[in-house]
Amino acid sequence: MSANSFGRRFSLSCFGESHGELIGVVVDGCPAGLKLSERDIQGELDKRRPGSTLYSTRRAEPDAARIVSGVFNGYTTGAPICILITNRDVDSRPYEDFRFKPRPGHADYTARVRYGAFNDYRGGGRFSGRITASFVAAGAIARKLLARLGVEVYGHVCQVGGVRAERAPTLEELKRAYENPARCALPELAGRMEDLLRQTVAEGDTVGSMVEAFAFNVPPGLGDPVFHGLDGDLAALIFAVPGVRALSVGMGFEAPSMKGSEFVDEYTVSGGKVVHETNRCGGILGGISTGGVIHVRVAFKPPSTAFKKVKTVNVEAVREEYLEPWGRYDPCIGVRAVPVVEACLALVLVDHCLNQGVIPVVLRDEH
Amino acid sequence: MSANSFGRRFSLSCFGESHGELIGVVVDGCPAGLKLSERDIQGELDKRRPGSTLYSTRRAEPDAARIVSGVFNGYTTGAPICILITNRDVDSRPYEDFRFKPRPGHADYTARVRYGAFNDYRGGGRFSGRITASFVAAGAIARKLLARLGVEVYGHVCQVGGVRAERAPTLEELKRAYENPARCALPELAGRMEDLLRQTVAEGDTVGSMVEAFAFNVPPGLGDPVFHGLDGDLAALIFAVPGVRALSVGMGFEAPSMKGSEFVDEYTVSGGKVVHETNRCGGILGGISTGGVIHVRVAFKPPSTAFKKVKTVNVEAVREEYLEPWGRYDPCIGVRAVPVVEACLALVLVDHCLNQGVIPVVLRDEH
Amino acid sequence: MSANSFGRRFSLSCFGESHGELIGVVVDGCPAGLKLSERDIQGELDKRRPGSTLYSTRRAEPDAARIVSGVFNGYTTGAPICILITNRDVDSRPYEDFRFKPRPGHADYTARVRYGAFNDYRGGGRFSGRITASFVAAGAIARKLLARLGVEVYGHVCQVGGVRAERAPTLEELKRAYENPARCALPELAGRMEDLLRQTVAEGDTVGSMVEAFAFNVPPGLGDPVFHGLDGDLAALIFAVPGVRALSVGMGFEAPSMKGSEFVDEYTVSGGKVVHETNRCGGILGGISTGGVIHVRVAFKPPSTAFKKVKTVNVEAVREEYLEPWGRYDPCIGVRAVPVVEACLALVLVDHCLNQGVIPVVLRDEH
Amino acid sequence: MSANSFGRRFSLSCFGESHGELIGVVVDGCPAGLKLSERDIQGELDKRRPGSTLYSTRRAEPDAARIVSGVFNGYTTGAPICILITNRDVDSRPYEDFRFKPRPGHADYTARVRYGAFNDYRGGGRFSGRITASFVAAGAIARKLLARLGVEVYGHVCQVGGVRAERAPTLEELKRAYENPARCALPELAGRMEDLLRQTVAEGDTVGSMVEAFAFNVPPGLGDPVFHGLDGDLAALIFAVPGVRALSVGMGFEAPSMKGSEFVDEYTVSGGKVVHETNRCGGILGGISTGGVIHVRVAFKPPSTAFKKVKTVNVEAVREEYLEPWGRYDPCIGVRAVPVVEACLALVLVDHCLNQGVIPVVLRDEH
Repeated sequence: MSANSFGRRFSLSCFGESHGELIGVVVDGCPAGLKLSERDIQGELDKRRPGSTLYSTRRAEPDAARIVSGVFNGYTTGAPICILITNRDVDSRPYEDFRFKPRPGHADYTARVRYGAFNDYRGGGRFSGRITASFVAAGAIARKLLARLGVEVYGHVCQVGGVRAERAPTLEELKRAYENPARCALPELAGRMEDLLRQTVAEGDTVGSMVEAFAFNVPPGLGDPVFHGLDGDLAALIFAVPGVRALSVGMGFEAPSMKGSEFVDEYTVSGGKVVHETNRCGGILGGISTGGVIHVRVAFKPPSTAFKKVKTVNVEAVREEYLEPWGRYDPCIGVRAVPVVEACLALVLVDHCLNQGVIPVVLRDEH
Repeated sequence: MSANSFGRRFSLSCFGESHGELIGVVVDGCPAGLKLSERDIQGELDKRRPGSTLYSTRRAEPDAARIVSGVFNGYTTGAPICILITNRDVDSRPYEDFRFKPRPGHADYTARVRYGAFNDYRGGGRFSGRITASFVAAGAIARKLLARLGVEVYGHVCQVGGVRAERAPTLEELKRAYENPARCALPELAGRMEDLLRQTVAEGDTVGSMVEAFAFNVPPGLGDPVFHGLDGDLAALIFAVPGVRALSVGMGFEAPSMKGSEFVDEYTVSGGKVVHETNRCGGILGGISTGGVIHVRVAFKPPSTAFKKVKTVNVEAVREEYLEPWGRYDPCIGVRAVPVVEACLALVLVDHCLNQGVIPVVLRDEH
Repeated sequence: MSANSFGRRFSLSCFGESHGELIGVVVDGCPAGLKLSERDIQGELDKRRPGSTLYSTRRAEPDAARIVSGVFNGYTTGAPICILITNRDVDSRPYEDFRFKPRPGHADYTARVRYGAFNDYRGGGRFSGRITASFVAAGAIARKLLARLGVEVYGHVCQVGGVRAERAPTLEELKRAYENPARCALPELAGRMEDLLRQTVAEGDTVGSMVEAFAFNVPPGLGDPVFHGLDGDLAALIFAVPGVRALSVGMGFEAPSMKGSEFVDEYTVSGGKVVHETNRCGGILGGISTGGVIHVRVAFKPPSTAFKKVKTVNVEAVREEYLEPWGRYDPCIGVRAVPVVEACLALVLVDHCLNQGVIPVVLRDEH
Repeated sequence: MSANSFGRRFSLSCFGESHGELIGVVVDGCPAGLKLSERDIQGELDKRRPGSTLYSTRRAEPDAARIVSGVFNGYTTGAPICILITNRDVDSRPYEDFRFKPRPGHADYTARVRYGAFNDYRGGGRFSGRITASFVAAGAIARKLLARLGVEVYGHVCQVGGVRAERAPTLEELKRAYENPARCALPELAGRMEDLLRQTVAEGDTVGSMVEAFAFNVPPGLGDPVFHGLDGDLAALIFAVPGVRALSVGMGFEAPSMKGSEFVDEYTVSGGKVVHETNRCGGILGGISTGGVIHVRVAFKPPSTAFKKVKTVNVEAVREEYLEPWGRYDPCIGVRAVPVVEACLALVLVDHCLNQGVIPVVLRDEH
């Protein structure tokens, strides 16, 4: 599998750089017969694009998606779907300074070691959060496929710095998460998060965050252990999102502190079906969906871009130097990453639905 | 990629069930010319096998490894290396009860949904922690390859229930981690962990845990972004280990609570080389090794097997029933998982060393 | 994908050497719920094993297959199925001579360049035709799965040296192909082939051959273009069989000499279904099955092992030397390769049936 | 591996349809540091594009390649390289007739079975020879990489209908193969081939053909048996080229008629190196390059498009109907396929050079 491709049955091949001509993705394995328009893609992209929330970079990108293959007469054909998103607001001048002076906390230095002097350092190149636009574009197709099964994926920001969720949001709350600038589904928390974000921006600092995502109505039995369990596949994809530092499934972060008698989810019968009474496992056991709500949390670091002077090294001269504060950045990754985490979860679920025949290779009913 | 295969350049194909005839692994992609004997494998397996620590299942398995292909005259040939580990102490009788009454917290139920009535439920079948013996066997080869580069991997238990590490262990401490029954490298903590383990066993309960692992002397520049970064590949592999619920790279769990100004690792020059002054990123930036120590933590749930009666459902009759407490189990996964996490980290590192030519396909110097 | 693994949905990972302890294969992706016993495997292996025909090596191998994982209570579980075949009649002494003096026409030299001095040269090691026992073992499972759909695969020897088939055999003739020592389905040819084989052995020479295989009742629409068409996948697998030098689909060898007006297969309606009037395309168009009989031919070189002295080079001394004639060999590959080609065709068909959901991941009806 | 991706280390993901907006390819795994411009790509594309020879379709396509990612300051960066080729001369009207009446010999029917009514049938859609423009574009990069090692790939048309080569061309002849309209490197044959092509066009018919390709200066030891030998990988790729019906390595087509004593290539010493005295094996033994010239032949069927009326079936009405002769077509695939076969051979060789570290992941010397 090549470095920029992901997925066994519904696979994406991503390309493009932050300050290159465009960002794009080829989705291969989408069933024939899905009604698909650029509007379907655009709706998801709009949630992620800069400016979609107050607390994001000032880079102004319309992120307009064009489908250039794989769709004919309004339906997917079964051929690979290529989606292109042109970069518009590219200002590479501030980045010249980073060519030899890597920004601490960014991949500038490791990319230079990995790819030599050839790495495209402008705007972070391939390491920019901007590449996740292609995940979201592909995820939009995944979500349309899942909707046919009634599967819905929702995310929100559950932590910003010291402000963190103490409870799970309801489905209704999740549906309104994008309505507040912090994208927190919990009404009692959203305001405090917003305050913290505002204060962080004022201080010229940035702040860490956590996004949690839920998938509802997932059929039980999805997953391909041992190396392609739902959680393993999701983990592989999530760590491709810039800024991710930890992933938890269900009560993952809390599990080490708990006793077995507290953690176990017992079974019961409800509506003639076997269900878990509780969902500490986050809807995945042994890499396979339980039929309960899938629940994952993703920890993002505070962005390393900041207004304050930082120490770095000139990699050519091999001497310490300082970097002046630089331009356009997001103060908090989580706020813009909500649709990205949702997309990742949707992509993995669709891959497994196709893997097990839950979604067929041709959707004969749609036509 | 098939469900039971992992790795792009140094790949393992695993097979075998907990109560079947054997457990095994085929390692493909190992360079020709590595001196390798069964003793090399056995040394690592002995760290994981039941009975290697007081706090493990009473199942008595010698876990004797046999190399049946890929080695000739004491050296690897470049052909696939098959390693077989025969199961000896198999007592499947207690598991008959679980055929229709899935154990809560185990994969009994999800496996039945996924594979129908055909799933081998004896001892957890493919979902048993026993399958990680094959990871450790393959990891032993990986560690021998890494040793040629001076790369060393060490792990220990950094948390059991409420007892958790407040500092990182030194390399010297890590080297002695296996000397105490809790496998905690911190002398100030090991005794308290052991007390907690003893008490947990006495109560017939189990407890969650966390394992952390470190890789020293990793060359900078390893990783294949965006989808095969070091962290992404490790995440994919780690979630195949039964009981894993969360993974963190560097200060991953803490990142959401931090400010950018606290989190960033600045660069400096040391011995003529560019290095990080701090290592909050855990040795990986943008999916690529920084040259610093790689640091990951893995959260394990408390084992679901216990002495106390639990509620379940008879899946044939679709009615609630109770399961009597059952037999042989580990009270705390982390204690036995230390060599498994070490193996996973070693496997991913070797895969990337091969991917980038840091380790050649033939080791011409060894002969 | 690792070097010794093949298949996307029904994948095999092969291992073992000609003179090592054993030959084996791990089949991953087999649906749960297939009734499977060692006898099913053995039946196919017996067709390939040395001594199954007069015109084969004198090496005496029972080729007894053991299933050591993935089957429980007589049914496949969905877990990887490992099959082991122990080597019995190993006489490596004659091969010491080949360590530094590669046999012309064998892979002795190229393997030494590829893997250094570490290559296992005994009996050809990984390059021996013996490795195809693992293809046949896996193919036996594939054939059982195909039988559920009514798909049947048959092969025979259609050419030995100058004796070649001028017509296609009937299904009835194909079913009796194994009854004559030349394994030629055409009664008018079998005797002449046998004469040629006998004469070739008498002369201490070997002879080239061609095997053709047919698949009947293949559902139309199988194939995953552009890079995983039925023909492309089959080609990739067939060229792993030692001695293969060419592959043709339908009238492939003849196509360059033909006009379009002679070659085209027109459509007609038969029994309410669209069918081809002729089948020059060999049942595959655009990489996808037409619903007609699949027809492929595989050209084998004459084995390079012979009774006559040949010139080679001592690779250490880098000087010309001669090799004395050596031991046990097959005078004609095709005769023993019939079950191998059948297995390859069956394996590719099953992979695609699974890929498109024609065979489900659990066979719920068998239990 | 997804259906439209090929290659393990130097991989291509192809997309686009004959009458869609564009054709494209994402090349992933190209080393950083290769000097690359659109002119490099264009030079190869120009050899394949319609109108490059008299005997091709009248469709007028400039086939102008645009590199939209992966190149920065004139050098490859190590990131995926996306190349787009816009379709200009699209006239889909004649194809409406084929929607329900599949053209015999084309994939119209099988594609409809495979993808349902959603398949893009215009101009053959994904099944058009036009998709090979993306192979050639990717192959241009591969050839630049190979040129660094002195490896050169040349092809020519060695057979058209009854006119066939009786000898191998010299390197000098191969270099001039594109100078005559039949693209036959043998001066004594080119004229006769051209006559046959002219006559075929005059008759409104088409003709089969054979392309042979050679790779010079290939280092010995390339190949990854058993399933990724050089020949197996090439076979998998070649069968993705529309119209291919057979592949032969070295004396593959002739091998079944030969004796072992005639076929074997003996070794000798030349210039202090081990070489083959003859090259009947076509430069590949056991899936590994011998260091001799690689020689393959690819058989193409006569194109099925023709001026004459053919019988087909209306797939909706399920009744026989006739198709009037249709528009723009190539009378002989081989003439335009020469650069495609060359590209395929170059792509496979580069993949293996990368796989074995013969080409490094960063070309530090170029900058």
